[in-house]
Amino acid sequence: MTLQSAATKVVANETAPFTRNEFGARIERTRVAMTKAGIDAIVVTSEANVEYLAGFETSFAWVTPSRPWYFVVPRIGDAIAIIPEIGLTNWQRTSWCEKIETWPSPRPADEGISLLTAYLGRIRRQHGKVGFEIGPESRVGMPVSDLLRAKAALDLEIVDCTMLMASVRSIKSPAEIDRIRHICRIAGRAFAELPSTVGVGDTEKEIYRAFCASLLLKGADKVPYVSIASGHGGYESIIMGPTDRRVQTGDVLILDTGSKYGGYFCDYDRNFSFGRPSAEVSRVYAALWHATQAGIDTAKPGKTAADVFQAQADVLISHGFEVGNVGRFGHGLGKIITEHPSNAPGDETVLVPGMVLTVEPSAMFAGGIMAHEEDIVITEDRPEVLSPRASAEIQIIEC
Amino acid sequence: MTLQSAATKVVANETAPFTRNEFGARIERTRVAMTKAGIDAIVVTSEANVEYLAGFETSFAWVTPSRPWYFVVPRIGDAIAIIPEIGLTNWQRTSWCEKIETWPSPRPADEGISLLTAYLGRIRRQHGKVGFEIGPESRVGMPVSDLLRAKAALDLEIVDCTMLMASVRSIKSPAEIDRIRHICRIAGRAFAELPSTVGVGDTEKEIYRAFCASLLLKGADKVPYVSIASGHGGYESIIMGPTDRRVQTGDVLILDTGSKYGGYFCDYDRNFSFGRPSAEVSRVYAALWHATQAGIDTAKPGKTAADVFQAQADVLISHGFEVGNVGRFGHGLGKIITEHPSNAPGDETVLVPGMVLTVEPSAMFAGGIMAHEEDIVITEDRPEVLSPRASAEIQIIEC
Repeated sequence: MTLQSAATKVVANETAPFTRNEFGARIERTRVAMTKAGIDAIVVTSEANVEYLAGFETSFAWVTPSRPWYFVVPRIGDAIAIIPEIGLTNWQRTSWCEKIETWPSPRPADEGISLLTAYLGRIRRQHGKVGFEIGPESRVGMPVSDLLRAKAALDLEIVDCTMLMASVRSIKSPAEIDRIRHICRIAGRAFAELPSTVGVGDTEKEIYRAFCASLLLKGADKVPYVSIASGHGGYESIIMGPTDRRVQTGDVLILDTGSKYGGYFCDYDRNFSFGRPSAEVSRVYAALWHATQAGIDTAKPGKTAADVFQAQADVLISHGFEVGNVGRFGHGLGKIITEHPSNAPGDETVLVPGMVLTVEPSAMFAGGIMAHEEDIVITEDRPEVLSPRASAEIQIIEC
Repeated sequence: MTLQSAATKVVANETAPFTRNEFGARIERTRVAMTKAGIDAIVVTSEANVEYLAGFETSFAWVTPSRPWYFVVPRIGDAIAIIPEIGLTNWQRTSWCEKIETWPSPRPADEGISLLTAYLGRIRRQHGKVGFEIGPESRVGMPVSDLLRAKAALDLEIVDCTMLMASVRSIKSPAEIDRIRHICRIAGRAFAELPSTVGVGDTEKEIYRAFCASLLLKGADKVPYVSIASGHGGYESIIMGPTDRRVQTGDVLILDTGSKYGGYFCDYDRNFSFGRPSAEVSRVYAALWHATQAGIDTAKPGKTAADVFQAQADVLISHGFEVGNVGRFGHGLGKIITEHPSNAPGDETVLVPGMVLTVEPSAMFAGGIMAHEEDIVITEDRPEVLSPRASAEIQIIEC
């Protein structure tokens, strides 16, 4: 062991591999949902759904648009991977599914689409419908022109399967929750270490890079999302990348990370004050902390995502703040950083044990915007807070 | 400056910001291409094209599918951003484009699509066609159901603009090449440091995490892609993520990274031998090194991407190797890790100065597969090799 940081060693393999039974249960739940929806087959092409159903893990498939990757689950009959030849070994080493067809790729004139339509043409039909990821909050993992080509070639109606899959994925197994808990803890250690490693005069870019590196060295597989903002007495956006701004005494700094471990995200933030916070910052922080707590306290089985929003909004309004321009106060969390449902007015999704949510109030004030975020899993009683709960007062970085 | 590693400091701001003129030139070239193609407007929704045309930089927009982000460039008239309200400040701080419409989001029933169709309904029409990213090698950044809704609402033909934009982006400006050169150098320093920080007994996961962290601390903004493989006398895949396998004496290790700086990728790999390589590994390595060199030597203006493939293939075949299952020997590089063209049989794209390519031969042999990769920019004469050229013999990690 000659690596610079021994920290990477202690976190290896802290969660169990998914069993063959786990994948079997996922496929079974998906088929039940397909039967209810009257869909003969689904074709998934996104990282979240291919990984979830097939167990396929890759460094490659989702960063390049050159080649699509298809996983087809008919309601009756064998699931199949239809993938570019370059991925055959990778698929065989990581997926339970041994039925695979490949084509030599790149081949722009027929990037797997004739194999896909041929297979769909042979499935058992009862409803005449095939699901693709085309609905709200979807990004299909194939060229739309190929989807339209499949549609024209097939005597099947193309319907959405995004919501079907989001619903199947929304209740996490204990093994999935383990992974989210694990990445939440890793991020917690990176947040905890931050005050001892940054100081006045550092730029946002420097703090951002050191924080990303820290997450990896503490055991994150990937750091797809880190936003950062700083400003005197507040900040103005919660979704931006780092700038060359140097932090100063009197600044508030926020870091928010969606880091991944074993295919699952954490998504939460922390605020820091360089020196003593202003009275206004303390007041906003307190309102957000209590709003978060109200959201957590409300998130029990039988309540809705809208209830979790309202509990947070009530606290903010009682403290005299506007609810801001974010559009919701948290969302589902899992294989995607933002999953169904939204903690927002009108989202009447009923909470059930196994759902993982963020609780994420934000408030506008004279200094800009501030946000808090924690990650929770719904249980039979009170939710388990997966992220180490933020302190009730803003953490101070001495300077 | 109290950060753990002072290394982050030396690389800050080593490339100049893009000027307003640079964006003006991009829009102008895009409009010329639109006129030639007979397209009245394009709607771009992908990270690469929105960043390229609008200059919008965000940590947020491309990691979550909850909200789409539209940038519309009509052939005649003002370009406009149609974006969720949460992104307004982020847009104003990073983009040159001041014409913005927003909607409160999430709003699943109308996620910006009525604003988009209203704007498209008002553009000056000559050809009756609007381009979306729907063609080969595209991933549209919006739900397909919304694209079909726009199609139904508009009296406009929907055509592809992926290839149009790929073509506009394919010839890089000096400022763009600076960024690719910069990230190539950062990766070069991380590769150079590797032998002194890893050793026999480390797992692939440990090596992977330390390498990702090193890239960030040396100045990479993001590390979207690192593949790793190891094995005794060879490895079996060049696109997989890390496993728990511990490297041993006699192993060959490959690391390949697509890291980003300022919105641009590097994409190249390095091979390492733990102890003295076998005669077979040395023979494959030499064939790949010479194949890479032949690709580089061929990549001059007037030659085609297919020529760059053939030069590499000729060397491999003369050394007695098969060309493998990757489908091409390199590709365009820039804002996407794999851009147009493909160094493959049949791709008759003519090389011109400013194009950035990878040269990437791979060979199958008894021990599995091995690959090499370098990044080059086409000049008036010989290409500039942007990655620090690999040594002619495989680098040995003593053990």
